[in-house]
Amino acid sequence: MARIAIIGLGYIGGSIGLGLRAAKLRDTEVVGFDDWRAARSAANKQNVVDNVVGSPREAVDGAGLVILATPPAATSELLEEIAPHLGRGAAVTDTAASKSKIEGWADQHLPRGVSFVGGHPMAGDASAFGIDNASADLFRGKRWFVSPSPSASDNAVKSVLGMVRELGATPHFLNAVEHDYVMAGVSHLPLIVSSALFTMLRGSDSWPDFGRAAGETFRSMTAFNSGDPSMTTEIAVTNKEQVQHWIDRFVLELNRVRNLLDEEEEQVFLEYSSAQINHAKFLGGDDLDPDAGATPDIPDATSQMAALLVSPRLYDKVREMTRRSEEKEKQREARGRRWGRG
Amino acid sequence: MARIAIIGLGYIGGSIGLGLRAAKLRDTEVVGFDDWRAARSAANKQNVVDNVVGSPREAVDGAGLVILATPPAATSELLEEIAPHLGRGAAVTDTAASKSKIEGWADQHLPRGVSFVGGHPMAGDASAFGIDNASADLFRGKRWFVSPSPSASDNAVKSVLGMVRELGATPHFLNAVEHDYVMAGVSHLPLIVSSALFTMLRGSDSWPDFGRAAGETFRSMTAFNSGDPSMTTEIAVTNKEQVQHWIDRFVLELNRVRNLLDEEEEQVFLEYSSAQINHAKFLGGDDLDPDAGATPDIPDATSQMAALLVSPRLYDKVREMTRRSEEKEKQREARGRRWGRG
Repeated sequence: MARIAIIGLGYIGGSIGLGLRAAKLRDTEVVGFDDWRAARSAANKQNVVDNVVGSPREAVDGAGLVILATPPAATSELLEEIAPHLGRGAAVTDTAASKSKIEGWADQHLPRGVSFVGGHPMAGDASAFGIDNASADLFRGKRWFVSPSPSASDNAVKSVLGMVRELGATPHFLNAVEHDYVMAGVSHLPLIVSSALFTMLRGSDSWPDFGRAAGETFRSMTAFNSGDPSMTTEIAVTNKEQVQHWIDRFVLELNRVRNLLDEEEEQVFLEYSSAQINHAKFLGGDDLDPDAGATPDIPDATSQMAALLVSPRLYDKVREMTRRSEEKEKQREARGRRWGRG
Repeated sequence: MARIAIIGLGYIGGSIGLGLRAAKLRDTEVVGFDDWRAARSAANKQNVVDNVVGSPREAVDGAGLVILATPPAATSELLEEIAPHLGRGAAVTDTAASKSKIEGWADQHLPRGVSFVGGHPMAGDASAFGIDNASADLFRGKRWFVSPSPSASDNAVKSVLGMVRELGATPHFLNAVEHDYVMAGVSHLPLIVSSALFTMLRGSDSWPDFGRAAGETFRSMTAFNSGDPSMTTEIAVTNKEQVQHWIDRFVLELNRVRNLLDEEEEQVFLEYSSAQINHAKFLGGDDLDPDAGATPDIPDATSQMAALLVSPRLYDKVREMTRRSEEKEKQREARGRRWGRG
């Protein structure tokens, strides 16, 4: 009888439990623990796992795969607590949004012969949480980052991949540092920007005017403030260096845009039309295809571009501006040559 | 026979035409013009107005209300062009997202006896445009900013209010400068932030990784790049000073958050839990009620707060942290007194 242990039976841990039970794994028992009594009794009632046990130690006893679905900040202590009770060959994985800190804690606390393979499912509605929102299908069709620690055994990686596949997700390998860099840019920074935008305007003297005037743009760009603040906090704390790196880069980017607004309207239009075109390519998946090669940032006049553009008039405008930009560039080059600087 | 003229028969102008026709105004003719031939013939086919005419001059001839629904950048020339043909007592309004520049142009070009009453409907899907997307119900239930110029006559303001009400929208008065300040914060800055976020990551060397790792947060926070780049450009150009003001303030805010991450986790959690609570109040409309008075930014332990919080555990955590903050504050005060600095 194989045993899988889930520690933390909230939205994510509960969904893993329901998904694994739905997969009807042969000769496998899924056990779970949560330090919150209400979550334990809900897990029992909703049959989220085969067995709800009374302690982390009891959960990991004899388990081949241990899944930590607790708040990341709790992970270090939890790893220390379960370490003496893990069997040789066991695989430990987690579900946190940042990986390097947790991999470091695993390295520090787990005994030889136990493998840590970090995990991060890209699923779930940011504003949903708790076992009551758990669903067996939460991960179906979603990406699941897998970050094996350097010392992880092949068998441990296979166990985690097996779990990911049983839950219907697609594994995506990135090492812990790469993962945290990428996530800080593409997920943690946007969260922090969403919150800063809301907090700044909410804290302004004119707030009631802003709030009443707020349309779709503001509501959508600040919607992530509805999420669990513990999650945002833990992301910001456990991935601090990378998040700060990206905040600094974003400040530079905003200053670039600020200065761009002092340029001619044509330059501003090229900025936003390029963004629109590149965004259309992103949504279409075109510029993520490794075989597609580098794609131009400046719109050109090919028919492929035309198809991406949202209106014929816009297309004409971009083409016209691109042509004028090129002419200016040529004139500049010509002047440069004339003045002996070319 | 009264006459209403719509110049510019795109998404907004076309929807105004359809809405006014649906209102079946008695003894009123709605005429329209667009400088794009395809828009004129579509307007004819779709009966967007009673009559499509061949020039702006022809449209405004004898009109009591003239609605400019053209790109804002074109407004100065257009006002100059129609000025000699406007009748005494006519009201001119527009639909642009910024108001001060256009009010200035109106002041410069319109003759005495003609009133300018700026307008800005808060409606429409940012990614929809063109007459084919026009709808008679586009403005129903939406807010419509009305910014009468200082010299506008009461009758002109009433004409514009009448139009707004016939379209089912709710008028909201703000003078042009207030409007632009508020919109720059609550709408233009979020648009520019959305674009800068996408452009920065798209321009990074690791882009394909970012794009493939992009989840809901990134997609939602950068979705406004799908909008018409002409609109973003025109907003950025016609409301430049206010937009730059808000970019500068947002950079300060981001730097504040960056430094906050170096503080204890407790402080970071207070930041994000306050944001979550204030955001819930915003969504509920509570803190926009002028009679509600000032609401505390720091969560306290009242039952009203508890209702807003998303989970009992979060509530306990906030209460505990608030208590600890207060104790620390008292200790600090006590130390201050002891050291004679209190």
